[in-house]
Amino acid sequence: MNNIFSYFIPKDRKFFPLFEKASANLVEMSVLVKKLVNTPDLTQREPIHKEIEDLEHRGDEITHQIYLELGKTFITPFDREDIHTLATALDDVADYMHGSSNRILLYNVVDMTEPIKKLAELVAQACTDVDKAIKELKNLKNIRVITDSCVRINSIENQADYVFDKAIGELFDFEDDAKVIMKYKEVLSGLETATDMCEDVANVLETILVKNA
Amino acid sequence: MNNIFSYFIPKDRKFFPLFEKASANLVEMSVLVKKLVNTPDLTQREPIHKEIEDLEHRGDEITHQIYLELGKTFITPFDREDIHTLATALDDVADYMHGSSNRILLYNVVDMTEPIKKLAELVAQACTDVDKAIKELKNLKNIRVITDSCVRINSIENQADYVFDKAIGELFDFEDDAKVIMKYKEVLSGLETATDMCEDVANVLETILVKNA
Amino acid sequence: MNNIFSYFIPKDRKFFPLFEKASANLVEMSVLVKKLVNTPDLTQREPIHKEIEDLEHRGDEITHQIYLELGKTFITPFDREDIHTLATALDDVADYMHGSSNRILLYNVVDMTEPIKKLAELVAQACTDVDKAIKELKNLKNIRVITDSCVRINSIENQADYVFDKAIGELFDFEDDAKVIMKYKEVLSGLETATDMCEDVANVLETILVKNA
Repeated sequence: MNNIFSYFIPKDRKFFPLFEKASANLVEMSVLVKKLVNTPDLTQREPIHKEIEDLEHRGDEITHQIYLELGKTFITPFDREDIHTLATALDDVADYMHGSSNRILLYNVVDMTEPIKKLAELVAQACTDVDKAIKELKNLKNIRVITDSCVRINSIENQADYVFDKAIGELFDFEDDAKVIMKYKEVLSGLETATDMCEDVANVLETILVKNA
Repeated sequence: MNNIFSYFIPKDRKFFPLFEKASANLVEMSVLVKKLVNTPDLTQREPIHKEIEDLEHRGDEITHQIYLELGKTFITPFDREDIHTLATALDDVADYMHGSSNRILLYNVVDMTEPIKKLAELVAQACTDVDKAIKELKNLKNIRVITDSCVRINSIENQADYVFDKAIGELFDFEDDAKVIMKYKEVLSGLETATDMCEDVANVLETILVKNA
Repeated sequence: MNNIFSYFIPKDRKFFPLFEKASANLVEMSVLVKKLVNTPDLTQREPIHKEIEDLEHRGDEITHQIYLELGKTFITPFDREDIHTLATALDDVADYMHGSSNRILLYNVVDMTEPIKKLAELVAQACTDVDKAIKELKNLKNIRVITDSCVRINSIENQADYVFDKAIGELFDFEDDAKVIMKYKEVLSGLETATDMCEDVANVLETILVKNA
């Protein structure tokens, strides 16, 4: 990051606060997803899912505000298309967390297995790193913090792949009811894909750094 | 859209007509997909699928023509890479409509359920909005028409998600044969993904607007 | 490709060798995947999978080196973000080959059917074309070689789609055990998606050509 570039970055007061809202929202959602998969009492799951759904709507609104801002603002802190892609990527993370929660309720998946809990934990870790990286975006003084978070998100995504594959292997080994396998596969893949989407966020962040290096 | 920019847009006679052909082709395909899922007589499905396949090939040719034109043309009406991405995105919509039709025939899915019909209807609506937006691309005088279509496509995609999730939940509740569930899931997800691909088209269109704002 | 542009391409000694390493690695992996699916003796599969896993790690390291180089290098042979996207796309091909191999072992898929062998063959062909195209990237004198490879990769991907769809149709027709269908579907879709990822590589290559036309 040379000084000339820093000089050209306008003191943006629009996009960075919105991105920070979006990533804080992801952290909040991921905590609720963890709570949901650690709630054995079925009657208590419904209200947690409702909260997740509310945050998903809030996320949609933030995404929409970023798009609107993009239409009105002439000078943006980084490439317009990267702002658009980043907003979309953050929204995708929210969608898959909400989707996983939705499937748990909709398919009446009662028993929350260890792999489900482990994946929810990994999703939460990835969201925390997304949030950490996003917060550094506004000054780009600590590029290292961003790249470190991106590296960790990639590693979390690899772990999630491993947990997912192993869980499916075990379902095939120990579960005879194909319907039950399918239901668990949907829930597990929803959570695993949420970490994929965090990796997409990391990819956009890396692209932004790469362009402004 | 300021006047200076409009001034710089060359009067393109190559790309816009091809994009309009591609999106008109999508509308035509989507009408046939709707017809297919509303045709109970199995013997009549084969010829409809054949028509869909023909349109898919026509779509491939249009996509190929856009790529060729891109190689030959020096000045393009908007960024070369966005032309490429838009052509690919339109092609993806066609692929998933054709894929859904193919699965219905190949897996011998006899009973066309309400969720299948509803999703086919949503795909057709999304294609109509893609076509509407593409038609406005050539003069960019009515940006509002494009953004309105994009907003509607996003809403249609959300509805398709909801219909899909609910349909899978009901399959798990009321269908005991896991093979039957799998077949329906494939058909439903083919149609649902077609609306995802329309959303990808909307995302490219928004990127183009954002760059040229 | 005009001469002025060629003049501006710096004699890059960093990225092209890394991309060539990455694509040569894909070819090597694809040969092993073909070997794996043609090895009926289960005890011999484990060491082949181990080799595939080693190459996947080697691929990860090459990808990481490209990212690092991108952070250090001021003048790149083509757009920074395309270098990033190309590296990621090549990595995705490796991931899906490794994933397919992993699923074969993990799900104890004993019988390697004709469609599996055919898809492994198509993946290998696509990787060969990826490698051919990547090798031409460094001088861009033979753009035709690159576009021809891209066209072939697209055609291979279409064939893979067809083989996949037909295989799933036959599983539904002749296999009654839904669990068995699911296992084969996962292996087949892993291989089919590897050809999709080769198509993504082809798309990036076309974007690079398009930008520099």
